[in-house]
Amino acid sequence: MDSQDIFGLLDKVRAEKPLIHHITNYVTVNDCANITICAGASPVMAHYPDDAEEMAAIAGALVLNIGTLSPELVDAMIIAGKRANETGVPVILDPVGAGATKIRTESTFKILKEVRISVIKGNAGEISVIAGTGGVVRGVDSGGISGEPLKAAEACSDLTGATVLMTGPTDIVTDGRRSYSVSNGHPMMGSLSGTGCMAASLCGSFAPVADDLLISSLAAAVTFGIAGEIAGSSCRGPYSFRTELFDTLFRMKRETIERYADFRTI
Amino acid sequence: MDSQDIFGLLDKVRAEKPLIHHITNYVTVNDCANITICAGASPVMAHYPDDAEEMAAIAGALVLNIGTLSPELVDAMIIAGKRANETGVPVILDPVGAGATKIRTESTFKILKEVRISVIKGNAGEISVIAGTGGVVRGVDSGGISGEPLKAAEACSDLTGATVLMTGPTDIVTDGRRSYSVSNGHPMMGSLSGTGCMAASLCGSFAPVADDLLISSLAAAVTFGIAGEIAGSSCRGPYSFRTELFDTLFRMKRETIERYADFRTI
Amino acid sequence: MDSQDIFGLLDKVRAEKPLIHHITNYVTVNDCANITICAGASPVMAHYPDDAEEMAAIAGALVLNIGTLSPELVDAMIIAGKRANETGVPVILDPVGAGATKIRTESTFKILKEVRISVIKGNAGEISVIAGTGGVVRGVDSGGISGEPLKAAEACSDLTGATVLMTGPTDIVTDGRRSYSVSNGHPMMGSLSGTGCMAASLCGSFAPVADDLLISSLAAAVTFGIAGEIAGSSCRGPYSFRTELFDTLFRMKRETIERYADFRTI
Repeated sequence: MDSQDIFGLLDKVRAEKPLIHHITNYVTVNDCANITICAGASPVMAHYPDDAEEMAAIAGALVLNIGTLSPELVDAMIIAGKRANETGVPVILDPVGAGATKIRTESTFKILKEVRISVIKGNAGEISVIAGTGGVVRGVDSGGISGEPLKAAEACSDLTGATVLMTGPTDIVTDGRRSYSVSNGHPMMGSLSGTGCMAASLCGSFAPVADDLLISSLAAAVTFGIAGEIAGSSCRGPYSFRTELFDTLFRMKRETIERYADFRTI
Repeated sequence: MDSQDIFGLLDKVRAEKPLIHHITNYVTVNDCANITICAGASPVMAHYPDDAEEMAAIAGALVLNIGTLSPELVDAMIIAGKRANETGVPVILDPVGAGATKIRTESTFKILKEVRISVIKGNAGEISVIAGTGGVVRGVDSGGISGEPLKAAEACSDLTGATVLMTGPTDIVTDGRRSYSVSNGHPMMGSLSGTGCMAASLCGSFAPVADDLLISSLAAAVTFGIAGEIAGSSCRGPYSFRTELFDTLFRMKRETIERYADFRTI
Repeated sequence: MDSQDIFGLLDKVRAEKPLIHHITNYVTVNDCANITICAGASPVMAHYPDDAEEMAAIAGALVLNIGTLSPELVDAMIIAGKRANETGVPVILDPVGAGATKIRTESTFKILKEVRISVIKGNAGEISVIAGTGGVVRGVDSGGISGEPLKAAEACSDLTGATVLMTGPTDIVTDGRRSYSVSNGHPMMGSLSGTGCMAASLCGSFAPVADDLLISSLAAAVTFGIAGEIAGSSCRGPYSFRTELFDTLFRMKRETIERYADFRTI
């Protein structure tokens, strides 16, 4: 595995401009569309089953986010997810609020049962809820976990077969066999709604251009974290941070990623 | 009643970080989430009845906003609102466009009949429509009222039992017995979509940390208005205003509120 | 036809402040609301059939956008559109993604069959799909067309009876008899989600204040393009561009439009 790939993936996204189909929440959907553009990919949102199924088949990746779910929306996710599975399109799941309410937890497991998920992006609480290792979720925020973060991420990967990106002050990326920690990022990312959703959009944007979902997810986490660090160094609050975050990602060069990337095997 | 409380409430929101559950419109929902974060609270949006009911029970406050309503959404609001009532969670209602169309007016009265509302936040037209004192609403904007603003706000409070925040160039806050006018604010707030919705989110954010909903609503109006004044003094249009508004609230200190607060008993 | 009108329409929007009713997607809806305000009009979003029908009747224009469609939403568009037709309210259609999936294409033709559309705003692919002149749409982006852009725009206008605004590096505005090309604009407009939707909102904002939909659509395209040019000259990425775009439109003066307008008869 050539770790160089991590630094070159953003340019590959820009060269290939994959179509990233989202079935997502109505809170952060605009930022998800725009972060996808800033990474060089092309976003599309389609949630009606017929529309979603057809769009999933022609997409480079499918991002499922249960932030404002309903049973109908979950059904659409499953229909689109199955179609994506048939055509080899990677599926990213963001189980927003799994563990906070019964329907969020059950819907997460329903999607995981019906669709082969390529990457799960979640906070420590959500990942631990899926792993069954004891996670607490309050609204859509992690409310703490019982065990070791790495163990929970690995258990989540083992159970689901997915690559897992567990976001937090330190991100963890694992496919159950290989694991990385990522120290890139900035506390201001926790003061802007939807940074988790955006991370999932970036996992989707990077997935189609890499052979290895661990590497694409790692690259997404590192690149986003670096953009956050740069934006965080000059902002005066969450909204100037947001402007800087998106603009910085849009202008990000390979050299910047190489220079600031801060991850290691764990 | 210690008027000092008004200046200290923002810090209490930040210390307690209450979960503010919204069932709201898809137009301004992102700004509602982020303004809640900027005040120091934690937003969650959940509109599917099962999800909304469970979320309402664990929330610090529930904000209902009919900006893009449907009968199904209103039903979800009532289910969540009843649950909030049972568990003592304050419920804030933003009757967006009440008076503009039949369904908006009827849905407002239906919610008021089924749910015990703690705080109603509306423009002069909407509040007057609820009060029955003659209000005109054009789209989602106030189109003028027949009588005195204070009389309409007091009548709305008397009829509903709720504390009323009537927003406008001068805000009025009343619980029917005690009334305040708030002169903080900036004209640019009328040139940004959703400032009314944001005011309701702030009423929700402040409600759980105060004993007195009149004081928490007054603090919300004053604090938001001051952020608007500061943002308005340096912006070049609605979007730089928005960035400044959110960042200013995020950084707002007690001293700033004490210094600029401009309200009085009426 | 007095070409001066083009430069004076923005001030007419501000003077008359028409109510612009949108039934639109949940991705870019906030920007659509705010761009409408920045042009001087008053946005309202209402999608539930009863609400939409009533709102359409009192609006200055109705904007239909199928960016995140469902059959129910398309039905609401048709109900509101028919009501708008009865009351003489101009209807703008943005056929987002027509040609990309079966339901988007079919829904576009269904709306066109049931509602008399005043203005169609689309990218080259979408307009060519409607015209039947060979258009490719990938997600919500134009993927190329077979013939001449002007021929496609004219054919679309001939088939539908609508004025057509085909957006792209060069915009084309035609009512089938008279045609203009507009060179205003900036490449950054292609790197921000929803600039197409915003263009449709502006067509809606300008339509009620002009006698001639060709002129109002041309004015919308020119004015938006100039705002894009000015914003693009000083931005550092899509989000600082967005802030500048909205603020620039908000402050735009007749003199600026006169100075920078770059369109010609074709």
